[in-house]
Amino acid sequence: MSSTSAIGWNPKLIDLSNQRTDKPRISGCTMVMDKGLGLTNFRDTLELAGEYIDFIKLGFGTAGLTPETVLKQKIALAKKHQVHLYPGGTFFEVALAQSCLDIYFHTLRELEFEWIEISDGTVDLSPATRIEAIKKAREWGFRVITEIGKKEEGSVTSIPQLLSTYEQDLSAGAFYVIVEGRETGENIGIFNQYGEVNQSYVTQVMKTVGPERIIWEAPQKQQQVWILGILGAQANLGNISPQEILSVESLRRGLRSDTFYCWKEKKSF
Amino acid sequence: MSSTSAIGWNPKLIDLSNQRTDKPRISGCTMVMDKGLGLTNFRDTLELAGEYIDFIKLGFGTAGLTPETVLKQKIALAKKHQVHLYPGGTFFEVALAQSCLDIYFHTLRELEFEWIEISDGTVDLSPATRIEAIKKAREWGFRVITEIGKKEEGSVTSIPQLLSTYEQDLSAGAFYVIVEGRETGENIGIFNQYGEVNQSYVTQVMKTVGPERIIWEAPQKQQQVWILGILGAQANLGNISPQEILSVESLRRGLRSDTFYCWKEKKSF
Amino acid sequence: MSSTSAIGWNPKLIDLSNQRTDKPRISGCTMVMDKGLGLTNFRDTLELAGEYIDFIKLGFGTAGLTPETVLKQKIALAKKHQVHLYPGGTFFEVALAQSCLDIYFHTLRELEFEWIEISDGTVDLSPATRIEAIKKAREWGFRVITEIGKKEEGSVTSIPQLLSTYEQDLSAGAFYVIVEGRETGENIGIFNQYGEVNQSYVTQVMKTVGPERIIWEAPQKQQQVWILGILGAQANLGNISPQEILSVESLRRGLRSDTFYCWKEKKSF
Repeated sequence: MSSTSAIGWNPKLIDLSNQRTDKPRISGCTMVMDKGLGLTNFRDTLELAGEYIDFIKLGFGTAGLTPETVLKQKIALAKKHQVHLYPGGTFFEVALAQSCLDIYFHTLRELEFEWIEISDGTVDLSPATRIEAIKKAREWGFRVITEIGKKEEGSVTSIPQLLSTYEQDLSAGAFYVIVEGRETGENIGIFNQYGEVNQSYVTQVMKTVGPERIIWEAPQKQQQVWILGILGAQANLGNISPQEILSVESLRRGLRSDTFYCWKEKKSF
Repeated sequence: MSSTSAIGWNPKLIDLSNQRTDKPRISGCTMVMDKGLGLTNFRDTLELAGEYIDFIKLGFGTAGLTPETVLKQKIALAKKHQVHLYPGGTFFEVALAQSCLDIYFHTLRELEFEWIEISDGTVDLSPATRIEAIKKAREWGFRVITEIGKKEEGSVTSIPQLLSTYEQDLSAGAFYVIVEGRETGENIGIFNQYGEVNQSYVTQVMKTVGPERIIWEAPQKQQQVWILGILGAQANLGNISPQEILSVESLRRGLRSDTFYCWKEKKSF
Repeated sequence: MSSTSAIGWNPKLIDLSNQRTDKPRISGCTMVMDKGLGLTNFRDTLELAGEYIDFIKLGFGTAGLTPETVLKQKIALAKKHQVHLYPGGTFFEVALAQSCLDIYFHTLRELEFEWIEISDGTVDLSPATRIEAIKKAREWGFRVITEIGKKEEGSVTSIPQLLSTYEQDLSAGAFYVIVEGRETGENIGIFNQYGEVNQSYVTQVMKTVGPERIIWEAPQKQQQVWILGILGAQANLGNISPQEILSVESLRRGLRSDTFYCWKEKKSF
């Protein structure tokens, strides 16, 4: 159950797992944002922390700027480590704005991407078009992650809007729904300009949807700590910086001061 | 014309170039600040993003702290990728303060550096000495970048002062003039303590000088977005963090939400 | 004396040392915080900057999350470069909370760690238990670093408390005492919410203890500049980010604008 088996600490004696489950897992996922790791760095990161990474997103349009040989090796390395690699939603939106969805899907299939993100963070999508894009992606053979929320500064999606889009996207065939937090986690969606979480918003959403199919973009430590405190280690967290993967895993397992209470109180948070 | 040729996206169908020109280019340059990349990381960065990097500055005096074998390999790797590598201006100022300019120039030549930075961010240089240093560097065979602006917190160069130094430096033989922004881009030159751009300052300067020979140090995303919005993708941007190279290139090409408008409005920004 | 011997600058002509001493040294130490460097990146960092690194801390519980093969290679590489590698104090506290101190010490010995950190940043330790832990660690053959200060936001240790714990820890066998600053250096111990140093606190402490056995966690540049300005290049600085090692070394040697005054005034700061 615990991934401490690969580590030189005797799990019978020191418990580092905090009931953390191994990959593949549905909840408790960590989605990392790669906005330009070199190939060696990418491999290095997977060899260090592959057990703790479920998804890597090639941020915004960077997949299109990555030399083909590097991109293909990233795709192969991710598969080898059971990590799902996919291009950011903005790239989808660029293709859409150029009326090139089929060539976009086709190229992604050729490159053997298995997951895809459908979003309308910058362009406007009618519900019908959004549903159609999800279904089309499914027909091309992709597993689909959608994203809810505009990228514009200060933009907030109302709770009813979020909930109805969530239901709609899952019904159309999406597997996960991401709540937009951008790279900064400031002045966007559930975060105010200081990066503080709109706690009642999250709590209210979680009353309806459960933690399994929702990924909270939470780039800042205070955000990760708060969401893990409420949802437990099974929360799905997104937009984690490559430098923060072991830090986030430490938070999940109570191996950092901010979530250490699980050991003090002898219970999992 | 477009560097998308090396990428697996069909440029006839999805346009990722936004009229971006290939290297070597005079304007639209990206200058990266290396303040301590290991050799593998340096190589990794060039192999991922060499097409998008025009200059790499070894920040302040770090060239002098880099082991000789590493430094020589960085120099060779940069050349291989058509990237101009040069030591930061503070190193020049240290040599100047020790009355060692000739040995400084000599050592840089031995190491086969081709570009050099002349600055007075910390020391005081009379116009005559500054001109002399530029000319001397040219005589040693270097191409010269000068920097305008003091590094002291809150320091601002007046517009007439900037314009006259700009003219003076180019006349003396400098190829580019950098406007100081430091590593942070806060409370320095054109940036206030929140990193916001003094917009009228930049606009007024650009009325006189054109974008080709001026490099704006702009380490923060909001600064890059604003300068690209005003000057277009041909703006020269400096002090870009190695982690942000693909992000900046995405901004130049409208592949990130903040500059996506070029696709929405079907025109280059 | 100066480590510039490995560098292509003629030390007879350009002085880059600012009287900096070579390793191994007791004071003037730099302690780097590794919270998840991949193995190649770790090696890369040592090959670039090994001369400037005295300690590397595997932050909080990350040592327990590092795959055993990677961990063992990090330990071997650190030894090769005369760098002392040790797990963060939170890991000790996790073992303590699980009543597993012996297995913790045993495992660290098996892995051939030579240094260990004893802290009570999150758990409560009576002075007697703290002394006992230090002595036990010494009996297991470790050299001991202790840490003073709680990790809770806004927490400050009084000066008399700090001084008495300092004396107590050294008497019990500790070699260094670290003053807590966390990864951020904000709203903790000697730092306010803006990261500014409580200057009278530090000055008063230094009247009693001298700079040799105390390590100041100072992750931000302004903090490093201030502490180096007061204590000189022989200050021990901790929680330095791997990206900032050459920057901190540049500050120590007056090769960055912020501490350049040593050259202007022709004296060491």
